[in-house]
Amino acid sequence: MKKIGLFPGSFDPFTKGHEIVVHKSLPLFDEVVIGVGINSTKSYLFSLDRRIKHIKALFKDIDKVRVEQFQKLTVDYCKDINASHIIRGLRDSKDFQYEKSIAHMNKSISGIETVFFLTDQEYSAINASIIREIHKNGGPIESFVTNPEILVS
Amino acid sequence: MKKIGLFPGSFDPFTKGHEIVVHKSLPLFDEVVIGVGINSTKSYLFSLDRRIKHIKALFKDIDKVRVEQFQKLTVDYCKDINASHIIRGLRDSKDFQYEKSIAHMNKSISGIETVFFLTDQEYSAINASIIREIHKNGGPIESFVTNPEILVS
Amino acid sequence: MKKIGLFPGSFDPFTKGHEIVVHKSLPLFDEVVIGVGINSTKSYLFSLDRRIKHIKALFKDIDKVRVEQFQKLTVDYCKDINASHIIRGLRDSKDFQYEKSIAHMNKSISGIETVFFLTDQEYSAINASIIREIHKNGGPIESFVTNPEILVS
Amino acid sequence: MKKIGLFPGSFDPFTKGHEIVVHKSLPLFDEVVIGVGINSTKSYLFSLDRRIKHIKALFKDIDKVRVEQFQKLTVDYCKDINASHIIRGLRDSKDFQYEKSIAHMNKSISGIETVFFLTDQEYSAINASIIREIHKNGGPIESFVTNPEILVS
Amino acid sequence: MKKIGLFPGSFDPFTKGHEIVVHKSLPLFDEVVIGVGINSTKSYLFSLDRRIKHIKALFKDIDKVRVEQFQKLTVDYCKDINASHIIRGLRDSKDFQYEKSIAHMNKSISGIETVFFLTDQEYSAINASIIREIHKNGGPIESFVTNPEILVS
Amino acid sequence: MKKIGLFPGSFDPFTKGHEIVVHKSLPLFDEVVIGVGINSTKSYLFSLDRRIKHIKALFKDIDKVRVEQFQKLTVDYCKDINASHIIRGLRDSKDFQYEKSIAHMNKSISGIETVFFLTDQEYSAINASIIREIHKNGGPIESFVTNPEILVS
Repeated sequence: MKKIGLFPGSFDPFTKGHEIVVHKSLPLFDEVVIGVGINSTKSYLFSLDRRIKHIKALFKDIDKVRVEQFQKLTVDYCKDINASHIIRGLRDSKDFQYEKSIAHMNKSISGIETVFFLTDQEYSAINASIIREIHKNGGPIESFVTNPEILVS
Repeated sequence: MKKIGLFPGSFDPFTKGHEIVVHKSLPLFDEVVIGVGINSTKSYLFSLDRRIKHIKALFKDIDKVRVEQFQKLTVDYCKDINASHIIRGLRDSKDFQYEKSIAHMNKSISGIETVFFLTDQEYSAINASIIREIHKNGGPIESFVTNPEILVS
Repeated sequence: MKKIGLFPGSFDPFTKGHEIVVHKSLPLFDEVVIGVGINSTKSYLFSLDRRIKHIKALFKDIDKVRVEQFQKLTVDYCKDINASHIIRGLRDSKDFQYEKSIAHMNKSISGIETVFFLTDQEYSAINASIIREIHKNGGPIESFVTNPEILVS
Repeated sequence: MKKIGLFPGSFDPFTKGHEIVVHKSLPLFDEVVIGVGINSTKSYLFSLDRRIKHIKALFKDIDKVRVEQFQKLTVDYCKDINASHIIRGLRDSKDFQYEKSIAHMNKSISGIETVFFLTDQEYSAINASIIREIHKNGGPIESFVTNPEILVS
Repeated sequence: MKKIGLFPGSFDPFTKGHEIVVHKSLPLFDEVVIGVGINSTKSYLFSLDRRIKHIKALFKDIDKVRVEQFQKLTVDYCKDINASHIIRGLRDSKDFQYEKSIAHMNKSISGIETVFFLTDQEYSAINASIIREIHKNGGPIESFVTNPEILVS
Repeated sequence: MKKIGLFPGSFDPFTKGHEIVVHKSLPLFDEVVIGVGINSTKSYLFSLDRRIKHIKALFKDIDKVRVEQFQKLTVDYCKDINASHIIRGLRDSKDFQYEKSIAHMNKSISGIETVFFLTDQEYSAINASIIREIHKNGGPIESFVTNPEILVS
C-alpha cells in the first residue's frame, strides 16, 4: 500500500521553512500531498491561486509531491486521500505546545498520527505572519520565500 | 466563614478539561462558583444560554457548585460573591505564562490569590479553540466535551 | 559617531515595564528613540496623541530620550534615524520566542542587531493587553502605568 | 476531617519564595506540614539540623504550620500524616514542566492531588542552587532568605 | 533499499512512553533498531543485561524491531547499521529544546535527520528519572513500565 | 568613563555561539572582558590553560577584547574590573529561564545589569555539553568551535 503523508497549512505564504519540511518528509513517504487549507472566515494576504501556483512551481520537478486545496477538517481530508500521517514542522517550543494539542486531538477523533520534522536552523526563525508584515510594508522577502515573484507578480 | 472559589472563563465550550478542574477544586472550598464571563466585544460560537444550561447540567448533582454569569472585572466579581480565590487549570507551559501574568495583575489590583490545578493527563491537550474548529467543520466533539448534545441541540 | 538605539512598540499603553527597559538601555546609548509604530489596520484603545503625550511626559527630564512616531518597517525607520540597534525588553519565555523570530528576521533583511534587557521582576507580569482589559472594565491601572491620568484624561 | 497539606522539598535553603508559598497555602488547609525530604545519596550545603531549625524559627508563631523530616516517597509520607494534597510553588515555565510530571506520577501511584501557588513576583527569580553558589563564594543571601543567620551561624 | 530507523537511549528503564514511540515509528520504517547506548562514565539503576532483556521481551513478537547496544557516537552507530533516521519521542517543551539541539548537531556532523513522534497523552508525564526515584523508595512502577518484573527480578 | 562589559562563563569549550556574542557586544562597549570562571568543585574536559589560550587566539586581533580568569562571584569580579554590565547570549527559551534568574539575583545583590544578545541562527543549536560528548566519542567538533586544534593539540 502506498504510504501517503499530508502536509497541511494555510501557507500565506509558503516559506523556506515549509519547503525544507517537505524535503525532509520525502524519504519516509511514497507521496506527500501539500494541502492548502481554506478557511472561509479567514482573510489571506496572498490569493489562493497565487499560493497554489507558487507551491506547484517549487516542487514541479518532484513527482512524489502533489499540491491540493481542501476545505474540511484536516483529518477528514486525510481519509479522502488515504493519508496515514499528518506532517508538521517544528521551529521552537511555542510551536510545539500548539502542535501537540492539535496532534493529540486529531489522533483522538480519527486515529491519524502526526510526524514531526525540525525546520533547519537557518530557517528556524522564519514566521509567516512576520513575512506578511514585512511584505505589507514594502520590505524584501526573498530571504524567507523561494521565488517570491511567482507569489506576488 | 464560607470558603468560596471562583472558576472564571468564557467556556466556549466548557470542556472535560474544565470539568476536571472543578472537581479537583471542590475538596478545598465550601462553594465553587463557575462564572461565565461576558465580553461584549467578543463573539462566541455557542450561545450564552446554551453554555450555562450545559454547565448546570454537568454539575446538577453537586450542591457545592453554582453556575453564574458576570460582566465585569474578574476580581470585582470575586468581591461581589465573597470569593477569596480564583481557580484556574494548567495544561502546558504556554498556558502557564499567560495565567501567571493575569494572576499577578489580579493580585496586584485586588489582593485576591489564584490557586492552580493540573488538568488530568488525558485531557491536557484539549483546547477550546480547536474544539470550535472541529465543530464548525462538522467533526465529533464528544471526546472533549461531556454531553455536547445539551450545548448544540 | 553617535550611538542611537530604537525602542519600537505600539505602547497601548506604555507600561512601567517599558519604562524600566528605556532606563536600562540609556547607559549603552548616546540617544534612545522611543518609536511609536503606527499600523493602519490595527485599532488602539488609547489615541496616538495621548500615547505620545504620555511617553513624552515620562521622559521630559532626560535629554537622551526622544519620542517619535513611525509608519514603516522598523528596520527602515532605524536607517532613517541612524539607529544601530533595536532595543527590546524580555519578560518571560513566551515573549522570548516571538522576539527571537523578529530579531533574526530584522537582522536578515537589514543587518540591524537587537539588544535585550530584562524587565525588572516587580514589573515582569505587566502585560499591555491585560491592562487594556482592566481599563475597559473600569479597574485601576496605576500599579502598571506611571501617571495614567495623562493617558486617559 | 482535618484538611492537611504537605509542602515537601529539600529546602537547601528554605527561601523567601518557599516562605510565601506556605503563607499562600494556609487559608486552604487546617494544617500545613513542611516536610524536609532526606535523600541519602544527595549532599547538602546546609545541615539538616540547621535547615529544620531555620524553618521552625520562621513559622514559630503560626500554629497551623508543622515542620518535619521524612525519608520515603512523598506520597507515602502524605499517607502517614493524612495529607490530602501536596503543595507546590511555581515560578516559571521550566519549573512547571518538571512539577507537572511529578504531580501526574504522584497522582497515578497514589491518587494524591497537587495544588499550585505562584511565587510572588519579587521572589520569582529566587533559585536555591544560585543561592548556594552565592553563599559558597561569600556573597550576601539575605535578599533571598529570611534570617539567614539561623541557617549559617 | 531497506529503510532503517534508530531509536537510541539509555532506557534506564524503558518506559511505556518509549514503547509507544517505537510502535508509532514502525509504519514509516522497514526496521527499527532500539539502541541502548552505553556511557562508561554514567551509572545506571538497572543493569545493562536487564534493560536489554526487558526491551527484547516487550517486542519479541514484532519482527521489524531489533534491540542492540552501542558505545559510540549515535550518528556513527547509525552509519554502522545503515540507519537513515534517528527516532525520538517528544513529551513537552523542555524535552523539545534539548532534542532540537542534539538533532541539529547530529545533522551538522553527519547529515542524519531526526524524526519525532509525540508520546501519547496518557504517558506524556512519564519521566525515567522520577521512575528511578520511585523504585529506589520501594514505590510501584507498573503504571509507567510494562512488565517491570523482567527488569527487577 | 570607559564602558566595560564582562562576558563570563566556563567556556568548556568556547563555541562559535560564544564567539558571535562577543562580536555582537563590541559596538556597545569600550572593552569586553571574557572571564573564564573557575569553580574548584567542577571538573572540566579542556584544561584551563588550553581554554584561555584558545580564546586569546580567537580574539588576538581585536584590541577591545581581554581574556581573564576569575574565581569569585561574577558580580564581585565585575567590581574588580569596573564592568558595568554582564553580557550573556540567548539561544532558546530554556536558556532564558535560567539566565533570567541569575540576572535578577545578580542585580539584586550588586546592582549590576545584564545585557543579552541573540546567538545567530546558524549557531543557535550549539551546546557545549553536547560538544564535549561528541569530542569524548572522537567525533568532529570544527562545525561548532573555531580552530579546535588550539584547544586539543
